[in-house]
Amino acid sequence: MSEGTAPATGDAAAIADAAARERLRYLRGSIDNLDAALVHLLAERFKCTQQVGELKARHSLPPADPAREAAQIARLRTLAEDARLDPAFAEKFLNFIIDEVVRHHRAIADRSVTSGEGLPE
Amino acid sequence: MSEGTAPATGDAAAIADAAARERLRYLRGSIDNLDAALVHLLAERFKCTQQVGELKARHSLPPADPAREAAQIARLRTLAEDARLDPAFAEKFLNFIIDEVVRHHRAIADRSVTSGEGLPE
Repeated sequence: MSEGTAPATGDAAAIADAAARERLRYLRGSIDNLDAALVHLLAERFKCTQQVGELKARHSLPPADPAREAAQIARLRTLAEDARLDPAFAEKFLNFIIDEVVRHHRAIADRSVTSGEGLPE
Repeated sequence: MSEGTAPATGDAAAIADAAARERLRYLRGSIDNLDAALVHLLAERFKCTQQVGELKARHSLPPADPAREAAQIARLRTLAEDARLDPAFAEKFLNFIIDEVVRHHRAIADRSVTSGEGLPE
């Protein structure tokens, strides 16, 4: 590389870096928007599973339901494939959520047994 | 309890169980809808982070970014509180996603080094 091209190359690199930083900011803005949506959907999902947990506790149904979980996993894997999301990750994600839900359900069932009362829906 | 009221109590229990099963089906329908939305948002999020990963690899930026991650966690905890989602769970969820993203970024960086070429955005 000649001495004469060094400043131009440096400018081009600086412009490329500035463009990359701008692009990174743009993508991170989208990620932040998607995360806000994800958190709100998760909040809504736990509102539903909270009600399921109370229903199960009142009717003495087991907190975990392997048949239902298998159907959910199969369905989500198919949806993930259509959306070009790694199906293995979709399954890992659902298991991550279900673990939390089962933990909530056990807590509801324990409270229900301790108090000897039905829980409000 | 007198003999005469036993069948009526049995009917009431059967009706209550049928209503509970119907309510469970209804809630599970909502959970399935929310899961489909979550999977599609996650797919979109990974499309963004895929581009971030390629950008980082091209500009030799480190795959993980602790300052950015700390800001994301603080923001999501606040959003979670407003949405009545356990902030600790929101943080666990983001860490779960970030672990997967960093895994993807490392794979992109490794491929980039191996091929000696920039990756397409």
